[in-house]
Amino acid sequence: MVPRSNRGGPIRDIMKYKHPALTVDVIIENGDEIVIIKRKNKPKGLAMPGGFVNEGELLEERAIIEAKEETSLDVELKELLGIYSDSKRDPRLHTVTPVFIAKPVWGHVKGGDDAADAFWININEIKSHEFVFDHKKVLLDYLKWRKKKGTYWSTK
Amino acid sequence: MVPRSNRGGPIRDIMKYKHPALTVDVIIENGDEIVIIKRKNKPKGLAMPGGFVNEGELLEERAIIEAKEETSLDVELKELLGIYSDSKRDPRLHTVTPVFIAKPVWGHVKGGDDAADAFWININEIKSHEFVFDHKKVLLDYLKWRKKKGTYWSTK
Repeated sequence: MVPRSNRGGPIRDIMKYKHPALTVDVIIENGDEIVIIKRKNKPKGLAMPGGFVNEGELLEERAIIEAKEETSLDVELKELLGIYSDSKRDPRLHTVTPVFIAKPVWGHVKGGDDAADAFWININEIKSHEFVFDHKKVLLDYLKWRKKKGTYWSTK
Repeated sequence: MVPRSNRGGPIRDIMKYKHPALTVDVIIENGDEIVIIKRKNKPKGLAMPGGFVNEGELLEERAIIEAKEETSLDVELKELLGIYSDSKRDPRLHTVTPVFIAKPVWGHVKGGDDAADAFWININEIKSHEFVFDHKKVLLDYLKWRKKKGTYWSTK
């Protein structure tokens, strides 16, 4: 049951409810190319680099760490594309993911950690690929962002 | 200890780590005015309307619900201003909050639920007020957004 509201009450009331898990994903762009990874773990398939955010961490720091681990690139975050919270977006559990747009500042692309592989694709290839989670929707939003900026979410 | 990475492994590994709690806040704007609430619960003080996001919920729906409960306004979300994840931003626990910019579509401002009061302030008053959590930083980012758009986060 979804409670009517649960913001301001005592801490014991706040913790009664379960919260979605928080992840973060990164679109690393360079001209007309972005970096895509092939996931090593289930669900297997193509994805943006990203990962879970742990308690105590800054979202923006976790984004940079995951980009480095999975693509070997040092990146700099430029903008927030949006935030995706559809409870069906991840088959494992309810995850909410903000998506940053970043630029590479050092290194060569090489898969690592949870990424079996990592590589550049041309943005024209986005439409013809399948991606895990809701990453296709996110990347299609990114194509809109390239044309007219704006911010995006699951139901927009 | 912050794990090196914990994205892709089996679900039992993912759930080993604690995640921050997710909240959502809303800047309701109309011309040069925005709606501010006076919190009924601790920490007491001025704030943007907002609240915790529960498992299974869409962030954007929770934003609209909290705006309605705390300000009595029906709102429409326009853009995402940013996302704030500094672990010190909320004295109660580590919360991460995306902030939406919205416009009122129906109703008159009246405090309700966790808001003891709700009222319009001119954006020129933001600088001279104190706010709870990191809401002053968020609202100063909003003033930047009005001038040059962009997206914002805790360390930007």
